[in-house]
Amino acid sequence: MEKADIGLIGLGVMGANLALNIAEKGYRVAVYNRTTEKTHEFHENAGEFKERIIPCDTLEQLVGSIRAPRPIILMIKAGDPVDQETKALKPLLMRDDIIIDAGNANFHDTVRRLNSLGADDPTFVGMGVSGGEEGARHGPSIMVGGTKEAYDRISPVLTAISAKYEGEPCSALLGPDGAGHFVKTIHNGIEYADMQMIAEVYGILRDGLGLSAPAIGSVFSKWNDGPLNSYLIEITAKVLLAVDPDTGKAAVDVILDSAGQKGTGRWSAIEAQMLGIPATGIEAAVAARSLSALKSERQVAEKAYPSGAAALSPEDRARFIDDLEQGLLAGKIAAYAQGFAVMAGASKEYEWDLPLATIARIWRAGCIIRSQFLDVIAEAFDKGSPENLLLAPAFIERMTKGSAALRNVVSTAALSGLPVPALSSALSYFDGYRQARGTANLIQAQRDFFGAHGFKRLDREGDFHGPWSDMG
Amino acid sequence: MEKADIGLIGLGVMGANLALNIAEKGYRVAVYNRTTEKTHEFHENAGEFKERIIPCDTLEQLVGSIRAPRPIILMIKAGDPVDQETKALKPLLMRDDIIIDAGNANFHDTVRRLNSLGADDPTFVGMGVSGGEEGARHGPSIMVGGTKEAYDRISPVLTAISAKYEGEPCSALLGPDGAGHFVKTIHNGIEYADMQMIAEVYGILRDGLGLSAPAIGSVFSKWNDGPLNSYLIEITAKVLLAVDPDTGKAAVDVILDSAGQKGTGRWSAIEAQMLGIPATGIEAAVAARSLSALKSERQVAEKAYPSGAAALSPEDRARFIDDLEQGLLAGKIAAYAQGFAVMAGASKEYEWDLPLATIARIWRAGCIIRSQFLDVIAEAFDKGSPENLLLAPAFIERMTKGSAALRNVVSTAALSGLPVPALSSALSYFDGYRQARGTANLIQAQRDFFGAHGFKRLDREGDFHGPWSDMG
Repeated sequence: MEKADIGLIGLGVMGANLALNIAEKGYRVAVYNRTTEKTHEFHENAGEFKERIIPCDTLEQLVGSIRAPRPIILMIKAGDPVDQETKALKPLLMRDDIIIDAGNANFHDTVRRLNSLGADDPTFVGMGVSGGEEGARHGPSIMVGGTKEAYDRISPVLTAISAKYEGEPCSALLGPDGAGHFVKTIHNGIEYADMQMIAEVYGILRDGLGLSAPAIGSVFSKWNDGPLNSYLIEITAKVLLAVDPDTGKAAVDVILDSAGQKGTGRWSAIEAQMLGIPATGIEAAVAARSLSALKSERQVAEKAYPSGAAALSPEDRARFIDDLEQGLLAGKIAAYAQGFAVMAGASKEYEWDLPLATIARIWRAGCIIRSQFLDVIAEAFDKGSPENLLLAPAFIERMTKGSAALRNVVSTAALSGLPVPALSSALSYFDGYRQARGTANLIQAQRDFFGAHGFKRLDREGDFHGPWSDMG
Repeated sequence: MEKADIGLIGLGVMGANLALNIAEKGYRVAVYNRTTEKTHEFHENAGEFKERIIPCDTLEQLVGSIRAPRPIILMIKAGDPVDQETKALKPLLMRDDIIIDAGNANFHDTVRRLNSLGADDPTFVGMGVSGGEEGARHGPSIMVGGTKEAYDRISPVLTAISAKYEGEPCSALLGPDGAGHFVKTIHNGIEYADMQMIAEVYGILRDGLGLSAPAIGSVFSKWNDGPLNSYLIEITAKVLLAVDPDTGKAAVDVILDSAGQKGTGRWSAIEAQMLGIPATGIEAAVAARSLSALKSERQVAEKAYPSGAAALSPEDRARFIDDLEQGLLAGKIAAYAQGFAVMAGASKEYEWDLPLATIARIWRAGCIIRSQFLDVIAEAFDKGSPENLLLAPAFIERMTKGSAALRNVVSTAALSGLPVPALSSALSYFDGYRQARGTANLIQAQRDFFGAHGFKRLDREGDFHGPWSDMG
C-alpha cells in the first residue's frame, strides 16, 4: 500500500475535519485515535476521501504508514496529553521526523517541549490553527512556530489546506519555537474582545432600545455590508435571526447567558501582564465571561439594585444606531491595536522578529476574526512600522471619526445602566494613549510620599524626592 | 551579653525602620546586612535604641546572638535573594527556629520554600508588611501566613510592633503557607486601583475643570473629612499642596507622568485571571501605569489626535465636584469588592479559609490603603458572609447613591476625552453584576455556531446545539 504523506493523531471535531481537508487536497493521511472504533468509523464515513485515508490502530502502525521524513499532526487536548503523546512517539521517530502540535498550547509549553528534544530526536513544531469546525474542513488560518527547515518540509500541505484570501494562502512561519502558539493565543484574546464588544452593542440594542432579537439581527446584517464586515458580524446576524424550533422563540432568547473562560483568553491577558503591555480590552472580555458565570449572584444583585437603567428615547434611535456601528468599529480598532502591541512586545522580549503584516494577512481568511479590516492592518504594517496601530494614518482617519461615536455610546450606556466594559476600556485606552501629559505624576508623588520610591522630573535629568519630609 | 529576642536581615529603608520599631517596643534585635558598614552605621545612629540592637558581621554571629528558638526576619529583595539567604541560614538553624520572609514575595514562591523544608529544618513564615517607611517605623499592617505554632511564638513581637486601630493590633495569622503573601499581593492590587481612581479624578479636575494643583489639593483635603477619609486621600491632598522649592511651582507639576508597574500589582491581576475572578479595576490600574511609561508615544499620539476634549462648563462645577466625590467612593467600593472576591476565590481554591473580616480589620491602620471604610467592610463580613461586598446592606446603600454620581462622572469624562479606565471599569463591573439577564447568551450562540461548543438553555437542563447547521 502507498505510504501516507502525513499523519494525524486525534479525531475530534477539529482533527477529523483537518484530516478530510488534507485528503481532499490530494494528500494521503494516516490517522490514529486513542479509541480505535472512532478511527474506523471516521474512515468508513470519509466518502470520496476514503482511499486517501489510512486508519491505524496503533502508534507503531501510524508511524509505519507514513513516508519518511514523517510529519505527524497532534490535534488533541492541550496540556498533559501532548506531553504523553510526544513521549510515546519519540522512540518511534527519527531525527528528520516532525511532531506538529496543532492544539491550543500554551506557548511556554511549546518552548519547553522543543528544548527538551535532543539532536537525534524528531523536531517539534507549534502550530496554531483557527477557524473552528468549518475552517478545519475547508481552510483554516495556520500560524506556525518552529525552524525554517521544518516549515519548508511541511509547507506544501499546510499551504494546500489553508484558507485563501484573494488567492493568498493563510499559512506562514511566524518565528521560532513558541511564536506560532503565542500568536494563536493573542488571536484568541482579540477574538474574546471582539465578541465581547459585539455582545455589549447587542445588550444596548436589546435593553436600551428594546429591540427584538430578529430586529437586532437585521441591524448586524446591514452592518456586515459596511466597515464592520467580518465573519463575527456575519454570524452574529445569523444567530440573532435563528429561531428555536422547540419554542418558536428567537434562539438566542432561550440560551443561558453564561459563558466560560479559560486557556487562550486567560493566557493572552496574563502574557500581556507579564510583558507590561496594556490589553484592557482582552481583560475586560475575560472578566465579562467570568461575571457571566455568576448567574445566581447576578439574580440576587438585580433585586438589590433595581435598575437605574433608562430606556433610550425613540427620537435618537436611528442616529444612535449609526453611532453604535461607528463606535463598535472604534472599539475594535483599539482592541486590535492592543493585541498587535502585545505581539510586538513579545517579539522584542523573546527575539522572535514577528512579521506583524504577515500575521494580519494570514488572519484575513480562515480564522474566526477574519475580515477585510485585517487587510487594512496588513497595509498599515507594510507602509511603515507604526509603534501602535492607532498611529497608522489609515487608523487615525477611522479612529477620529469613530471615537466621537464611541464617546456617545459609552456615555449613553453609563447613564443608562448598561454594562460596556470592553467598549469603555477601548475608549479609555484611546484617551490615555493620546494624552501627552497624563496623571501618573500624581501616582509617582504618592509613591514617593509613602515609600520614598523617588521620581523623575520634567525639567531635568536624575532621580528626585519630593518636599514632603516635614508633611508626614 | 544578653541574647536578642529576634533577628533581622536586610537594613534597607523597610528593614532599618522595622528594626527600630522592634527595639522601641522593648525587644532586643540582632541585625545583619550584606554590607557590614551599613550594619554598623545603622547601629551607631540608632540613638536611644542602640543598646537593644546587636550589630552582626556574619550570619553565624547573627544566629549565635539570638535566643533559641530563633525568629529571623528577612527584609530583603524578593526573589532569588530570599532563596539564597534561606539556603545560607538553613545549616545554621534548628527545627524550632523560624525564617520569616517579610518582603513582597510571590506567594507561589512562599509555598515552594515552605514545602522544600524537611522535618528537621527550621520553619518558614511568609509575612506581608504594609505601611511604607512610616509604617515600618511606627506600626505596619502585618499579614502572616504559616503554621499556628510558628505564629504563636512570634505573635508577641508582631503585635507589639504592628499598627493599632482603636487599640486593636493590625497583625494576624491569615492562613497557612502563602496566605499572608497572597493577601499582601491583593492589598497592593487594591492599592493600585485606589491610586489610579484618585489619579483619574485628579485628571478630570485638572484637565476638565482647569483647576490648579493647590486648588485640587484643597478639594481632596475637604474630601478627607467625608466618607472618602483615608490615608491615600490625605496624602493626595498633601502632595498636591506641596511646592517644589527649586521652581516655586506645585511639586506635582514638575514630576514626570510616568509610573512603573511590576511585582505585586501585576501578580494580583494574574492571580485573579488564574482564579477566573473579575479584577478589572486592578487590571485597569496596572495597564494605566504601563501606558504612562510610553511617554514619547503619547506625545506623538496627541499630535495625531488633537484633543476632542471639551472643558466642562463652570455652572456645573460645584455639583460636578460633589459627583466626583461620590463617584470616587462608588468606584472604590467596586474595586474593593473585586479585591475581596479574589481573596474569597483564592481561599476556596487553596483551602486557606481566609478570615475576610480580620483582613479588613488589620488593614484599618498601618497599611497604605488604611481607612475607616475598611471598618465598614469588616462589619459587613462580621454580619454575614456576603458573596460579594456589593451585596452587603451597608454597601447597597452607599452604592445606590454613589453609582448615580459615578454614571455622571464616567459619562462626562467619556464625552470630554478624559481617560477614566479604572472608574469606568468599576461602573461596568457594577452594571454587569446587577444584571440578572446578561449578554453572554449571544457569545454562547457564536461559539456554538463556529466551534460547536454547545450551550445550556434557560428553560431546561442539558447541553444543546443551535439550529444553525444549514445557515453556515
